[in-house]
Amino acid sequence: MSPVTAAVLPPPDATPKPGFRVLSRDGDTSARRGRLSTAHGTVETPTFMPVGTLGTVKAMAPWELEQLGAEIILGNTYHLALRPGADIIARHGGLHAFGGWRGAILTDSGGFQIFSLNSLCRIDEDGVEFKSHLDGSRHFFRPEDVIALQETFGVDVAMVLDECVAADAQPDAVLRAMERTTRWARRAMDARTRADQQVFAIVQGGMDVALRERSAADLVPMGFDGYAVGGLSVGERRDLTHRVAHSTVQLLPEERPRYLMGVGTPDELVRFVAMGFDMFDCVMPTRNARNGTVFTSQGKLAIRNAEHRDDTGPLDPECACVACRQFSRSFIRHLFVSGEILAARLLTTHNLHFYLERMARLRRAIERGTLRAEAAAMGVDLDAPPESASPQGEQR
Amino acid sequence: MSPVTAAVLPPPDATPKPGFRVLSRDGDTSARRGRLSTAHGTVETPTFMPVGTLGTVKAMAPWELEQLGAEIILGNTYHLALRPGADIIARHGGLHAFGGWRGAILTDSGGFQIFSLNSLCRIDEDGVEFKSHLDGSRHFFRPEDVIALQETFGVDVAMVLDECVAADAQPDAVLRAMERTTRWARRAMDARTRADQQVFAIVQGGMDVALRERSAADLVPMGFDGYAVGGLSVGERRDLTHRVAHSTVQLLPEERPRYLMGVGTPDELVRFVAMGFDMFDCVMPTRNARNGTVFTSQGKLAIRNAEHRDDTGPLDPECACVACRQFSRSFIRHLFVSGEILAARLLTTHNLHFYLERMARLRRAIERGTLRAEAAAMGVDLDAPPESASPQGEQR
Repeated sequence: MSPVTAAVLPPPDATPKPGFRVLSRDGDTSARRGRLSTAHGTVETPTFMPVGTLGTVKAMAPWELEQLGAEIILGNTYHLALRPGADIIARHGGLHAFGGWRGAILTDSGGFQIFSLNSLCRIDEDGVEFKSHLDGSRHFFRPEDVIALQETFGVDVAMVLDECVAADAQPDAVLRAMERTTRWARRAMDARTRADQQVFAIVQGGMDVALRERSAADLVPMGFDGYAVGGLSVGERRDLTHRVAHSTVQLLPEERPRYLMGVGTPDELVRFVAMGFDMFDCVMPTRNARNGTVFTSQGKLAIRNAEHRDDTGPLDPECACVACRQFSRSFIRHLFVSGEILAARLLTTHNLHFYLERMARLRRAIERGTLRAEAAAMGVDLDAPPESASPQGEQR
Repeated sequence: MSPVTAAVLPPPDATPKPGFRVLSRDGDTSARRGRLSTAHGTVETPTFMPVGTLGTVKAMAPWELEQLGAEIILGNTYHLALRPGADIIARHGGLHAFGGWRGAILTDSGGFQIFSLNSLCRIDEDGVEFKSHLDGSRHFFRPEDVIALQETFGVDVAMVLDECVAADAQPDAVLRAMERTTRWARRAMDARTRADQQVFAIVQGGMDVALRERSAADLVPMGFDGYAVGGLSVGERRDLTHRVAHSTVQLLPEERPRYLMGVGTPDELVRFVAMGFDMFDCVMPTRNARNGTVFTSQGKLAIRNAEHRDDTGPLDPECACVACRQFSRSFIRHLFVSGEILAARLLTTHNLHFYLERMARLRRAIERGTLRAEAAAMGVDLDAPPESASPQGEQR
């Protein structure tokens, strides 16, 4: 066996232009090692984006995310437009200054939230009318409005407004939504005015591979800065998620970042990285933490379980996060069953560290062309089908 | 007017013996500048102890308390004995290691909690039987048990078990409780075995100055390491709190630390320091923070109020805490109304900083003999009666 030699990557530019470069490839899989340059630093890809729906990652302070090595977080245009409102964010000079986060920010358009939180929303070609889930007030978002909002937020990556359908939607509804998403993407592209902001389109088409092909074929020639795959992880069987993701990623341009929205488990991330996706977001590490579910090198554990009551060892003996360095399972369980805020803080810190550390390992493996072996070391056999075929919806 | 000259204080010893020294006096008031030496560092007095009932100060990590300059925190024997249980704390080698706090710890005995949380507790000369507020299980605490528990916890200062009565208790009930507290204090003193742990007695006697005098006269000859004034701030009129505190502090030995339990507002602390108290604890900064009430140099504010919605200024323009340095009122209000954990974190940080910074200013003023002027600069006229005469109970 020849010695493993890591690819020599170019150093980040001091003042990079916003954009994406593929730096190296795994060779053995479709994984890529890339770099997304933004006005708020570079993002080494594949990357995981902690979810900060309201401009803040739940339970965390921004400096703690920096310490964990997060380079980009995700906000949500729908949520932020309703609360605190774009006027408040504008008054602060943008979402970065508002929330005190110095790294990059990507905002989702809120299409998913508008359609999932509003059973009574009314859509027409111009846009979508919906009621605020907070106070019932009526709002109307056109694709142009959603770009304008994100330009006001000053985020580094904006997502186009998309029409989302349920996993069990009828074929004609899926088709109509996909076509409308494409027309809206064109209008979003025409509406943009900020050169320092990248805009990503969202490939839709439900679980129908032929529709996904049409969606991608229409969107790619428009020349977006990046491409996302939406409409997955919405309640469908997990093997279907993987199949659609696998076929769709191959429709996306090689030289642009590919973002798989709203997934997934730590093991799934390994598979999606191997397929060639570059960016991910998921509430799983943060929400599970607040529910007491912990990701470890030995699998998941529920901190509430009585077996941890007198366990003076760390959450994960292989972990170097501050929760594992300084506290026992016993103490963290005590905090959790007592309803102490510090429990949510320490578990969130640990779970995000687990996700971000995993991504860092995957990046190094891609540089060395050893992703398959690294995946195996993580317990993921890239040649076997994904473990779980059960539906598993996660809010993106 | 002669120039102000600060007292030259001796430096802390490298390996101090547990104990207390009065380092200097204000002269103009009864305030003292002291130093409590413990096996976990020195505590400069007057000091405020953040409340960490369950071994953790709510919403805070131990390193954040260190950064704020806290030197001692308060735990609660009753609560810790029930959850997580003394066996768990022993298994970690003590409360310091369990909770990851490197500074000093004082634990309250839990007398106040046993009597306030258990309307059906049964007291006899041997001790008190009570039901756990968590699961209804029955427990029996003798004064000796409470010392043994605190020795197991390995805390730096232990409090004796006291019998507490309500503010409106009949005179004969107050008398009986005071006398029993004294007899229990003797038993606690005889039960102690650790030379590295200081034990404080608690002066009781309700609002009756004559009973307070008897309580102190009986306890002081026993030679405790420090003396606390209990049974105040339990619902009585606030002017009465101040009157009883003022007369009782004069009954306590000059050379021992004097701890006024469970108070108070920032302005009250100034008055109690001027009376000659050295140590304080109160849930007010932490609990108020979680309720959205903020202490500032301009008085209290409710962060929920609409006036803060678009205020890009800090909570307190005169504050140097991380919440004020890095975030606006508008952002913190957004976090608060959204139920984000970070709101509780930032507001707790700010309020504790306010309390601890105030104590630091008072210490410097005592060193210079200028406490009256410093109090006036804080808006407290030591020659006028306390502002509010309304009852204001705070759990200690």
